[in-house]
Amino acid sequence: MTYDARDFRALTYFDHTGRFRDGGDDPRRYLERCLETIAAREPVVKAWVVLNEQGARAQADASAARWRAGKPLSPIDGMPIGIKDLIETKDMPTQMGCAAFAGNFPKRDSAVVRALRDAGAVILGKCVTTELGGAHPGPTTNPFDERRTPGGSSSGSAAAVGAAMIPAAIGTQVGGSVIRPASYCANWALKPTQGALHRGERQGYSQSTTGVHAGSPVDMWRVAIEIGGRAGGDPGHPGLFGPADAPNAVKPQRLIVTETAGFEALDAATREAFERVLAQLRERDVEIVRRGDSPLVESFERGIANIQAVNSDLCAFENRWSFANIAEQQPGALSARALRVLERGRAMNVDDYRQRLLEREEAKRRLLAIAPLGDALISLSSPGPAPLHDPQAPRPTGDAVFNYPSSSLGAPAVTVPLLAVSGLPVGVQIMGQLHADAQVAGIARWMHELV
Amino acid sequence: MTYDARDFRALTYFDHTGRFRDGGDDPRRYLERCLETIAAREPVVKAWVVLNEQGARAQADASAARWRAGKPLSPIDGMPIGIKDLIETKDMPTQMGCAAFAGNFPKRDSAVVRALRDAGAVILGKCVTTELGGAHPGPTTNPFDERRTPGGSSSGSAAAVGAAMIPAAIGTQVGGSVIRPASYCANWALKPTQGALHRGERQGYSQSTTGVHAGSPVDMWRVAIEIGGRAGGDPGHPGLFGPADAPNAVKPQRLIVTETAGFEALDAATREAFERVLAQLRERDVEIVRRGDSPLVESFERGIANIQAVNSDLCAFENRWSFANIAEQQPGALSARALRVLERGRAMNVDDYRQRLLEREEAKRRLLAIAPLGDALISLSSPGPAPLHDPQAPRPTGDAVFNYPSSSLGAPAVTVPLLAVSGLPVGVQIMGQLHADAQVAGIARWMHELV
Repeated sequence: MTYDARDFRALTYFDHTGRFRDGGDDPRRYLERCLETIAAREPVVKAWVVLNEQGARAQADASAARWRAGKPLSPIDGMPIGIKDLIETKDMPTQMGCAAFAGNFPKRDSAVVRALRDAGAVILGKCVTTELGGAHPGPTTNPFDERRTPGGSSSGSAAAVGAAMIPAAIGTQVGGSVIRPASYCANWALKPTQGALHRGERQGYSQSTTGVHAGSPVDMWRVAIEIGGRAGGDPGHPGLFGPADAPNAVKPQRLIVTETAGFEALDAATREAFERVLAQLRERDVEIVRRGDSPLVESFERGIANIQAVNSDLCAFENRWSFANIAEQQPGALSARALRVLERGRAMNVDDYRQRLLEREEAKRRLLAIAPLGDALISLSSPGPAPLHDPQAPRPTGDAVFNYPSSSLGAPAVTVPLLAVSGLPVGVQIMGQLHADAQVAGIARWMHELV
Repeated sequence: MTYDARDFRALTYFDHTGRFRDGGDDPRRYLERCLETIAAREPVVKAWVVLNEQGARAQADASAARWRAGKPLSPIDGMPIGIKDLIETKDMPTQMGCAAFAGNFPKRDSAVVRALRDAGAVILGKCVTTELGGAHPGPTTNPFDERRTPGGSSSGSAAAVGAAMIPAAIGTQVGGSVIRPASYCANWALKPTQGALHRGERQGYSQSTTGVHAGSPVDMWRVAIEIGGRAGGDPGHPGLFGPADAPNAVKPQRLIVTETAGFEALDAATREAFERVLAQLRERDVEIVRRGDSPLVESFERGIANIQAVNSDLCAFENRWSFANIAEQQPGALSARALRVLERGRAMNVDDYRQRLLEREEAKRRLLAIAPLGDALISLSSPGPAPLHDPQAPRPTGDAVFNYPSSSLGAPAVTVPLLAVSGLPVGVQIMGQLHADAQVAGIARWMHELV
């Protein structure tokens, strides 16, 4: 099967709810169709760790009754959603793709799950994550080519949406864990401003965000804002800003190209596809600002040239104590990759960590400095389509080089399923200043007109 | 027994280690003396939830061997320490003073506990906390008058140090949970800059800090800096700044009196005792700056006048999802007080939360604005001595009115066991600008000369 952005139809929800009111459709029937797709595709895609079909049916029935009564709890009432298996759910285990957590079943809802339930969403199941959200892959395959990775760490969330099993799923991103798999799986996805959606029990990284994978920009925003309005942001953060419904498409006046350290190494087909997008934008009178055009843009690019190392060191230092607990209490439960991360963290001291924090802070200032130069930033969401599955590769879920900047800077990013390269999906990423999530979502939505 | 700051001898460790090298004493014998004191006083004081005597003896023996070999891991190698029962320890349950966590025993060390073990400290036991660190008290009594509260929420930590059972203990402060019980129990205590000591799994509040209770300023600083150098700070925070050993006593040139909302309501004896301290300071040529002396100080006082409400609202909103999980999963496990906190949080929306964040941020700016006016801030650590135990009182562990400012502003604070009021201990609090922990500790140490 060859992917073409013009033909591909993802599963959407927003355009079905109109019929829930008059009984032409209802959330239970919607769910049953999802379950049929899952039955058909799951044996190959392997997106799910646990499915709670019985619970989901009960939730969908309750939702159907609310819609019939004209009293849905929110626009996403009844929407079947997958939850990345790093996030706690009271009715399903949370096993984190790690042997140390096999059977782990705290009977709690994370803040985001509680918010989704309060909005009436149907919590259908737990989606595969790489081991503890790191590089060690799970069993999930790419829905467009089973020989390829779905990306990670939100592998199952991205694949389930890409396979049209569900209209939306929750992922998390520390490095590139939402935007990259979404790019590989033709999802829309929002990686919000750092802290915008409450991370619940997962506050251990200074840079990680809860994000939303979806088949459409409307469902993507609706899920995000319904969470944001109920769960709020991380402790001390003001949460997600933006309208109560999906922002309209907004044509930008100027976009700043963000090359990142990945641009030089792009394969010819991907680079050409991206340059074509820039040409299309210029044709529509969008000014394109590149590193040669302004010393501030050049300074920003230099500030993020080393951001992958900054990102990796910060994360390694921040999780070393929890990894050390696992390594000590359950020898053998961590992959060789996770143990290398632990060693990397142990090799650092507090001064090393402070140095990396300063580098990140400096890069954030350079991002702020280019705010007057463009409405948003544009780059690829991944350096090409999903690579072939290779568990021995250094990066078995693909390269996050285009994702470290927004992760480290805490900036909002949306990936648009815009490109097909070698018959596989590749996303285009719109990134913005902190708290400009709605602006980014509006521009991203407009970008899709370029398909 | 009547408390007099001139007579009281707390348990110290720093002045014993010299004899560990020549065998005149050793950590095992030190521990045994602690256990003797515990055996004598614990039946009344009730500071401990769990004691790991066997494990502690093994740790102390290992430490003794290191000292004999001339290779202690740190200056606090062998020091018996109590851990507030909100913090996870791999060898003891973590029950948080809450029926919902009875028997809870994750086999993990929190970051601070891991750091202490790496420094060679002896993790002796878990100290009583109020329910989930809130207002609902545990069984601990004040070591100077068993009819009185030890303060909370670090009740057991403060009482164990005050009863000379141990030279140091770990506490945590969200509102007044380190400085207030330390004041009531004649401890030295450091509530560091927000984020300076890693909170491990307890990152759910935007304003809470891990702090150190101790019998001396030297042990207090040593414990803090040995943790800080190993565990670092919270994710994204640079950690504790300061010298590798306790700062020398430093006479300040100017101190800014912080009245807080509590000053007007002070009882006559406490107010008189505090004014006497200020008079003593003036006699020693320390300039005292009060709210009448500068509009900036006046502005700061006004900025913190309402800080208790800001503090309480922020905390209620931040913990409502986790409290809701407990209330739902274990009906009856939360006290009426905790349920009221949950209701308070549920009554807020994201806009209310943002408003409180802004008020806190504004108060922080007013603190920064007075930086040029004094070397540090001085106030009481509590509005008088420990109140009589009354489980029905609105604040059964005492009033934290003097503690909300440093908690909400993230500012470092040290309490000095300086005063006796009605024959009971009352602390004097030195507070500083963010990251001025060492400066605050040095001034606090000098303050003790006023005893």
